[in-house]
Amino acid sequence: MSQTEETNMYELYYWPTIQGRGEFVRLLLEDVGADYVDVIRKPDTEGGGRNALLALLAETGHFAPPILKDGETIVSQTPLIMDYLGAKHGLAPTDEAGRREALRLSMLLADFLVEAHDVHHPLAKEFYYEDQRDEALRRAPSFRDTRIPKFYGYLERTIAANGGYLVTGGLSHADISLFQIIEGMRYAFPKASARLEPDYPGLITLHGEIAARPNIKAYAASGRRIPFNEHGIFRHYPELDG
Amino acid sequence: MSQTEETNMYELYYWPTIQGRGEFVRLLLEDVGADYVDVIRKPDTEGGGRNALLALLAETGHFAPPILKDGETIVSQTPLIMDYLGAKHGLAPTDEAGRREALRLSMLLADFLVEAHDVHHPLAKEFYYEDQRDEALRRAPSFRDTRIPKFYGYLERTIAANGGYLVTGGLSHADISLFQIIEGMRYAFPKASARLEPDYPGLITLHGEIAARPNIKAYAASGRRIPFNEHGIFRHYPELDG
Repeated sequence: MSQTEETNMYELYYWPTIQGRGEFVRLLLEDVGADYVDVIRKPDTEGGGRNALLALLAETGHFAPPILKDGETIVSQTPLIMDYLGAKHGLAPTDEAGRREALRLSMLLADFLVEAHDVHHPLAKEFYYEDQRDEALRRAPSFRDTRIPKFYGYLERTIAANGGYLVTGGLSHADISLFQIIEGMRYAFPKASARLEPDYPGLITLHGEIAARPNIKAYAASGRRIPFNEHGIFRHYPELDG
Repeated sequence: MSQTEETNMYELYYWPTIQGRGEFVRLLLEDVGADYVDVIRKPDTEGGGRNALLALLAETGHFAPPILKDGETIVSQTPLIMDYLGAKHGLAPTDEAGRREALRLSMLLADFLVEAHDVHHPLAKEFYYEDQRDEALRRAPSFRDTRIPKFYGYLERTIAANGGYLVTGGLSHADISLFQIIEGMRYAFPKASARLEPDYPGLITLHGEIAARPNIKAYAASGRRIPFNEHGIFRHYPELDG
């Protein structure tokens, strides 16, 4: 983890027991070797815990985590954090149109993430899964058979049109988000993923390229990456996987 | 409708029979008096219709409407269009942090919009409302009693902290989006809106200020504004209004 002279120690605020939206940011920070503190994962006695989040929300007026603090700059909404860090660390096109394109694709992936979550929570975040399991069972086939192919197909065509990456000009933060989406889908829908992935070779090649990046490999092996679990956005309920 | 020398005639591509996400863009274009063509609303024989959309999607590789064409520049994802037009027409802060803040709030409003839609379509976009009405009835109370107050309360505090607008420094595109959210909520949830709105005076004052802007008034009176209906995002199903 190197620290450039211009860069503060980043502070990331995100739920401490799930990958969730925060994991997109963690992956980018890890990939670029940034110095960062995952604040809420620290103990209360060291300024961490939920009280640290509540204090930040009260101080800054932001809505919800993930929230990135870079000195005086506060950024929330996952795609905006990715855009901000991507531009700062060479993971975004430098021209305005290209940078907007990477952000657009990051927002598209965030839309897909909401759908992947709502498969297991179609009625309300406030209800337990068990209280909306029947509804989830009705929603899941449409997600597997219609929505995944719609998004994956679009992403595949986009990658094919842009030389192997989501945005022309090489790797960007949007590709890192795509990597995490594929990771989550493999966890939550292993059978559907195994069945569908062969139709999207460009997408799988790009996922593999990112998985093989040294800092991403090191992060995966470090024990710092919180395992997927049934409290996060991607949840493995076998009955929803068909 | 004035046209400045620097500005091309904008082309907006959005579904022709609903307000939907396109209405946020239409309102901004109307407010600033921009010259624009609502392409898909034109007849096929004049280069409009769904074929015009299909041709644009094939040509540009964008995912879905609304899509804005400004000469060679193509922008999609509603908050990004609002950010782009807002910056161009003086409806966004000029500093980077302020502009990001307006975009963040626009994205937050887009998140709320998804929830307002999913109240009547909790299971899948592909099913009719009538086929998920029971599930909608289960979801609606949580939306009315928990989600609306959560978002409205946050927006109210944000407005109070920023001198009457969502972002410090005066009116921005995010406020125009907020106006449209309130409009849609009043249409879809008239009883809940009437009950809840008195708790959020800053929000209602801001809505009223935008409603009174001359170009917005003229647009509302013009007959060009498509009425809300039960094909759009905001739908009035009385049984969901409590």
